[in-house]
Amino acid sequence: MKSFLERIVNPSEIKSLSYEQLEILALELRERIIEVMSINGGHLASNLGVIELTIALHKVFDSPDDKFIFDTSHQVYAHKILTGRNDKFSTIRKHKGLSGFSSPAESPHDHFYAGHAGTALSLALGVAKARDLNKEDSYVIPVLGDAALTCGLTHEALNNVPKNMKNFILILNDNAMAISKNVGAITGILSRFFNHPMSNKLYGEIESLLAKIPGCGELIASGGSKLKESLKNLISTAPFFEQYGLSYIGPIDGHDIKKMSSALEAAKNLQTPCIIHALTTKGQGMPNAIKNPTTYHGVKPFDLETGKFLPNPTVRPTFPKVFGKHMLEMAEKDEDIVVLTPAMPAGSCLTPLMKKYPERCLDVGIAEGHCVTFAGGLAYKSNKKIVCSIYATFLQRALDNLFHDVCLQKLPVVFALDRGGIAGGDGATHNGIYDISFLNAMPNMVIAQPRNGHLLKEVLESAFTYNQPVAVRYPNLPTEEFELPIQRRLLGKGEVLIKGEQIAIIALGHKCETALEVRALLENEGINATVIDPVFVKPLDKELLYRVFMTHPYIVTLEEHAVNAGLGQIINQFAIENGFNESQILNIGIPEVYLEHGSHSELTKEAKLDAESVKTRIHEHYFVKPATYATI
Amino acid sequence: MKSFLERIVNPSEIKSLSYEQLEILALELRERIIEVMSINGGHLASNLGVIELTIALHKVFDSPDDKFIFDTSHQVYAHKILTGRNDKFSTIRKHKGLSGFSSPAESPHDHFYAGHAGTALSLALGVAKARDLNKEDSYVIPVLGDAALTCGLTHEALNNVPKNMKNFILILNDNAMAISKNVGAITGILSRFFNHPMSNKLYGEIESLLAKIPGCGELIASGGSKLKESLKNLISTAPFFEQYGLSYIGPIDGHDIKKMSSALEAAKNLQTPCIIHALTTKGQGMPNAIKNPTTYHGVKPFDLETGKFLPNPTVRPTFPKVFGKHMLEMAEKDEDIVVLTPAMPAGSCLTPLMKKYPERCLDVGIAEGHCVTFAGGLAYKSNKKIVCSIYATFLQRALDNLFHDVCLQKLPVVFALDRGGIAGGDGATHNGIYDISFLNAMPNMVIAQPRNGHLLKEVLESAFTYNQPVAVRYPNLPTEEFELPIQRRLLGKGEVLIKGEQIAIIALGHKCETALEVRALLENEGINATVIDPVFVKPLDKELLYRVFMTHPYIVTLEEHAVNAGLGQIINQFAIENGFNESQILNIGIPEVYLEHGSHSELTKEAKLDAESVKTRIHEHYFVKPATYATI
Repeated sequence: MKSFLERIVNPSEIKSLSYEQLEILALELRERIIEVMSINGGHLASNLGVIELTIALHKVFDSPDDKFIFDTSHQVYAHKILTGRNDKFSTIRKHKGLSGFSSPAESPHDHFYAGHAGTALSLALGVAKARDLNKEDSYVIPVLGDAALTCGLTHEALNNVPKNMKNFILILNDNAMAISKNVGAITGILSRFFNHPMSNKLYGEIESLLAKIPGCGELIASGGSKLKESLKNLISTAPFFEQYGLSYIGPIDGHDIKKMSSALEAAKNLQTPCIIHALTTKGQGMPNAIKNPTTYHGVKPFDLETGKFLPNPTVRPTFPKVFGKHMLEMAEKDEDIVVLTPAMPAGSCLTPLMKKYPERCLDVGIAEGHCVTFAGGLAYKSNKKIVCSIYATFLQRALDNLFHDVCLQKLPVVFALDRGGIAGGDGATHNGIYDISFLNAMPNMVIAQPRNGHLLKEVLESAFTYNQPVAVRYPNLPTEEFELPIQRRLLGKGEVLIKGEQIAIIALGHKCETALEVRALLENEGINATVIDPVFVKPLDKELLYRVFMTHPYIVTLEEHAVNAGLGQIINQFAIENGFNESQILNIGIPEVYLEHGSHSELTKEAKLDAESVKTRIHEHYFVKPATYATI
Repeated sequence: MKSFLERIVNPSEIKSLSYEQLEILALELRERIIEVMSINGGHLASNLGVIELTIALHKVFDSPDDKFIFDTSHQVYAHKILTGRNDKFSTIRKHKGLSGFSSPAESPHDHFYAGHAGTALSLALGVAKARDLNKEDSYVIPVLGDAALTCGLTHEALNNVPKNMKNFILILNDNAMAISKNVGAITGILSRFFNHPMSNKLYGEIESLLAKIPGCGELIASGGSKLKESLKNLISTAPFFEQYGLSYIGPIDGHDIKKMSSALEAAKNLQTPCIIHALTTKGQGMPNAIKNPTTYHGVKPFDLETGKFLPNPTVRPTFPKVFGKHMLEMAEKDEDIVVLTPAMPAGSCLTPLMKKYPERCLDVGIAEGHCVTFAGGLAYKSNKKIVCSIYATFLQRALDNLFHDVCLQKLPVVFALDRGGIAGGDGATHNGIYDISFLNAMPNMVIAQPRNGHLLKEVLESAFTYNQPVAVRYPNLPTEEFELPIQRRLLGKGEVLIKGEQIAIIALGHKCETALEVRALLENEGINATVIDPVFVKPLDKELLYRVFMTHPYIVTLEEHAVNAGLGQIINQFAIENGFNESQILNIGIPEVYLEHGSHSELTKEAKLDAESVKTRIHEHYFVKPATYATI
């Protein structure tokens, strides 16, 4: 019986509960989250780690007047349940259901859409600055995971925290993990405290001793706080934050509601911005998740009893799986292969490669900008073959690095653009559907999208022969591998998949499969379509296109990318440049809306990119209505 | 007589000079740089600050085997002169002359194109990692200004410095300045040393004293370096870098060649990555420049005797000047206006506004990502009117922030995109010619480009009424203001500037002026063109375009933006979507090459965007050759 959970409609009701009751509430929240995740899948381990912390926040502060701003926000499940969304919680990440992230459209308690890491501190500083200009006095409380400290954006914000800003409380939810294990110097900085078990005692001793040193008196009188700061450096993480003007409170056990609440109460009255360093365990309350926090970071449906994941309904490998497996094979054969990932070794299926060749498969943390510029440095006048594996949506965080540090110098870095296309359960923040728009603008860039796993391998093997930056785009969808020899792919060479007449469908990557289905559907109506796989978005196979345009009055472009900035527009330009005035073109892609979360197939239908919808659109555009207006 | 300067053809010759001779060399370099800058203009103050540092680098290391990687690289003039480019130095920043930045095309001593800040450390880590994988032993030496520490990218790289990487020496050229005065906590962190004049003495005393404390012995034995680190925090900048695993040497007087050389020699033998903290004076050796380092950061030609800038040949204000002046006027009238700049208050003409309203005109440092996300936070549910002033080329550093923290939530931030178009003397790294490609892909985005200063004011005044993100793009070129009342501009409303027939030129922003000239030239040949100013790239004025396409068989689009991703492509899409099959379209914009440096008019001619070239292209495309192939 979820007695407390069901009783709480407004988070303010938490304030009247005793700590004993809050402990029960925490148990109920944990149970509820595990239960729903076992059915829906979602971000499990991160959410289990912040339950007590979330309860303490709502106990001490008044949401939504006081604003919790969650970084990345895949840790908002407890917050959602406590802010009136318990009844809808079973719909989380489902089409038309609750979002898996913070969502202002859902609730006044959610302030920003946030799926990319490192934005909370900058956003919170903006909210607090507007508050201060208006002389209001609510609290602004950014909640960051420790991995946000690997993001440059967080440091840019830290550098800009006004020293005199009040009512500004940064919560650092430190579980020593990003999605995978956290990387870099920051891990050491945060864990200093634990390296010196005797440090607390020592700190007191040194301080009293120094006060007695002749000659030190003057300095201690004038700069006493500076001296203390220095000593604390021995034994705590404090100076890291204090150097940016934040008062440091901690470390606090983030699973102790009472201690967390006391720390928050103490922070309330400070006249400076402050940080509360909360130590939490990713996956807390679920032994499997604690043991394997990376595996249980984002989960598929699992068995509630055993914690084991339910068998995958498909046996086909996904594009990322083919990528990871093939990169391992390539690295085994060629010791010059170096693969980089910004904190996504698990998602991008690079874990086996990283285990086998730790010196040649590097996780740089959530630091996409660095990842791309670092790749440029590695590729400079070197014999190394650099593959930068990055989600399409996260490459947006490194556009200038791509331009300035790779393309400008025509360095031969291969970008494996994972999750190109509709994101599915992760929703609007994660859709990788804008990359072609900016990649196409970059001189020296090659853009390819293989239609299946076999072609992915072929493009990966061929990419280094192009001797310039290459983006290989693919979605996180099942595909085929085939047991065929791997052929070299000529740069800018497309393929006719099936020859028809009158209408040609030029389809990008896995949408070729859709195009073939569309062709079958059109055949039933007596229309015999040609299907073209351009393979390369840039450079286009102009010779092939020239033939296609010469022989087909009706052209359709089909892609899982924003329609107003993708392959279709590039084909339009080709047609106009080459004087194909008599051709009629229909561009089909993702319309200019933010596609929310849902299953890939539901969202594909919503965007009218499934075979049946595409067939209908083609039919209506060319064969029913006068061919003047495109529907999207 | 520049005796040493003229003698040095290869930088290795520096090694044989005595320190006295090197001092003379420094004087000669300084004189040479000032002399050429007085004629060509360029980055003056930054280059004057690093002359001795550069000499010391070449004295101690062997370029190009040892690699100096200059951040932002507007401090490479001495390096250029010393590496065989003295004879060409008078051509710097001129069309077809030396680049004002590091340029691999010029010399094997230059490794990367670098005009944007904060990239050097990531690049250097890449170069060093490739070196280590190949078991080579050259030195990699990134040279950073202190302002690079306001860039998140530098912190991402710092987090990734391998603790055991040898032959890796970071030079921090600390002049306490970005282009303008450096901002944020980082300034305090770097200047700690100076807050404690007695600190050196004290440090020694405390150290020896602590060694004698009973109970401390054990800790000192086991973690002595940690204890020392802690003490140094009192009196130096060291811990900031040591926390990232870098050994710290400094601070060193960066104008003392001997001391710098000794520090570099010491660094050579370390078994860890290290940082040399060099203190320099921006503008060293030129009193005017020292006094006004911001004014003398990037200079126009000046009088050698007095240091005074030569009078500007034009009396017309530039777009950025109109922007700065008008923002001040708007801020005076409306206290909700808040303007942000990432380290460009001078360039973006915001200094008067910042002086008058320091709380409402904020410089966040070279931190474009933070700037945009912070803007999103400020605009959230607030009555504030946020203007984010940012160079078009630097917005590339904040694409994801624009997407994730502004557009996704449809927050009404106005982006004043300065330097939209060809950069001129700064060259390829600074061209702002890709922004439309990614801005157009963003849902909820408005893109406008006013054709003159008056229209700029009107768009700025109107932008907040659109209640969504708005990008207002303009170049750094002279324009007109007009003494006319400011009218509200309707969203997505274009204008017919002059009515003709047969051919319509749709020209973006200041290219309307070119289009009117083209019209006059075409008139001589009996062609009577219509000129259209769409004002908005997004949303397009579809009603107006519909009329234009209905009445003109020939359409020309004209823009100072990459042709394959700009207005032209958007117009093409309009034509195809609306079934204007009989229209012929010619897209004129910047071809897919990296335009180098030169004057704006030289580069405009090179890109064939001047009136004469455009006229010729139109004429050839439509009136001479059969209209099938576009020239670009």
